[in-house]
Amino acid sequence: MEKKGSLLSVREDVRVLDATLRDGGLVNAFRFTDEFVKDLYEANIKAGVDYMEFGYKASRDLFDESKFGKWKFCRDEDIRAVVGDNDSPLKIAVMADVGRCDFRRDITDRADSPIDMIRVATYIHQMPAAIEMIQYAKDKGYEATCNIMAISKAQESDVAQALQMLTTSGVDCVYIVDSFGSLYPEQIARLTMFYQDILEPHKISLGIHAHNNQQLAFANTIESLSLGTSYLDATMSGMGRGSGNCAMELLLGFLKNPKYQLNPALKFIEKHMQAVRESGAVWGYDIPYMLTGQLNQHPSAAIEYIASGNTAYTEFYQTLLDNE
Amino acid sequence: MEKKGSLLSVREDVRVLDATLRDGGLVNAFRFTDEFVKDLYEANIKAGVDYMEFGYKASRDLFDESKFGKWKFCRDEDIRAVVGDNDSPLKIAVMADVGRCDFRRDITDRADSPIDMIRVATYIHQMPAAIEMIQYAKDKGYEATCNIMAISKAQESDVAQALQMLTTSGVDCVYIVDSFGSLYPEQIARLTMFYQDILEPHKISLGIHAHNNQQLAFANTIESLSLGTSYLDATMSGMGRGSGNCAMELLLGFLKNPKYQLNPALKFIEKHMQAVRESGAVWGYDIPYMLTGQLNQHPSAAIEYIASGNTAYTEFYQTLLDNE
Repeated sequence: MEKKGSLLSVREDVRVLDATLRDGGLVNAFRFTDEFVKDLYEANIKAGVDYMEFGYKASRDLFDESKFGKWKFCRDEDIRAVVGDNDSPLKIAVMADVGRCDFRRDITDRADSPIDMIRVATYIHQMPAAIEMIQYAKDKGYEATCNIMAISKAQESDVAQALQMLTTSGVDCVYIVDSFGSLYPEQIARLTMFYQDILEPHKISLGIHAHNNQQLAFANTIESLSLGTSYLDATMSGMGRGSGNCAMELLLGFLKNPKYQLNPALKFIEKHMQAVRESGAVWGYDIPYMLTGQLNQHPSAAIEYIASGNTAYTEFYQTLLDNE
Repeated sequence: MEKKGSLLSVREDVRVLDATLRDGGLVNAFRFTDEFVKDLYEANIKAGVDYMEFGYKASRDLFDESKFGKWKFCRDEDIRAVVGDNDSPLKIAVMADVGRCDFRRDITDRADSPIDMIRVATYIHQMPAAIEMIQYAKDKGYEATCNIMAISKAQESDVAQALQMLTTSGVDCVYIVDSFGSLYPEQIARLTMFYQDILEPHKISLGIHAHNNQQLAFANTIESLSLGTSYLDATMSGMGRGSGNCAMELLLGFLKNPKYQLNPALKFIEKHMQAVRESGAVWGYDIPYMLTGQLNQHPSAAIEYIASGNTAYTEFYQTLLDNE
């Protein structure tokens, strides 16, 4: 399939994935109203979005269900309550973290489930466990992706080895994940070519999941797209952990395939996103997130700092530098 | 001079220009406190910023002085009250709009002025008048730049002709200006090479002035930089008309030359920028600005819409489409 297009052309390989409930759920403990979830499902269908990620398949033994909304656990019956038999072109995805998911218990045959795709999130040192999960998911009939997190802190030779391991796993797509929002478009371009060189001969697609610490989530997404990446993660109004993600409205406005429609996303945003902010969810570009991004650090210190209401940025910067 | 660097190297040709008072002045009618301006001047010196734009040299016959702060007019004596003899490496710039500046009256010899650089802002149909101003400024001893606005609506052949006209004007630098925040990095890359092909043989530098309608101001700035652009406009917290500009803190955190220091900018931001927002200045990424950016339209409709407090985005989008 042709993967290089111009700004005016259509790339048939592109797949847009809405990760609002999953990455956005990290900032409100997955406590979305049923109306929000139903409206999001319908907006995604109308907008031509290809996949909707409902949340995590997290272990109910490891996590206290009373502390989270239901989309931390994504029971099949909860998804079915929203989508019924999902008589639509929109596919349903969930994320499963290596080591935090009872996948043999909680992931059943695809034939019995409303879910179409399992996205396996892993750190690079967990690759054998990730591959076990990918193979399990593929055996059960699902599409499977692998999201290798925190690669900006990994050695390139280790990433190369991880990608090699994935070539025989049956995985459909491997994601470039900029966990800390630290990567510049030049680096995303190099990573895209690096992933592609190893994965393309095995017909494995590429995906991109970006964070907005340096206001580069959308830029990095379209940079990677322009070099051949097919699976693009985005969230409504960029809702996601810390500085958030690539904004769905930016991506839908950019893509030229007429199947993608901006209006349904705008309508959803005007109805719901301000209300979610008013309910206490905090995300979006802010100086502390910028600083952890620039320093290639996990955003946790910035999230805590912003929650404290403090704005002594120079002092916070010095604390971060002490942790380098 | 070597203009292609890696992410880790230093490019000696780079010049950072702080446009906070000028583009930011468009959102508060140039009503900055004296303390803000003085602190900004000192922060820029400490941060290693190369130029500070104080505002416009606007005609006092055309504009009612009671309706604007003093930085709309940038009298030499007002600048001198801040900078004294400007015993620092920071150079002082002002913008002069073609047709809105009594340049023969208000721009005196550089030897008598605290100003170092005149930035001539022009629409493409005003090029002969712009060149007259550039030649006047050069004759008076100033550095001069030309900022051709709204090029995203101009024909490429007209832009080529305008650039050709500038090659014999004496201008030091010509800016790529993304007035509507409509350009993607791919387009910025093409424009950079297009400008460079015409201007570089004449030793004329390139500059970039970006807007953040699509969260691409910083990305477009570093994209253009990576291809050889030297003069980079930025503003504190991205303060500027509509969605604002490339954020100074992002740019200073990106540049590797140790003369650029992030801390003074952070200290200025924590002291002043939240207060400026609380005083009523509105800027930054928002859906209506995104929509005018995506449609390559002037942001005025979006500015008005946001000021009205309305958030019916789909309706607003239809209005914009009616104006296409």
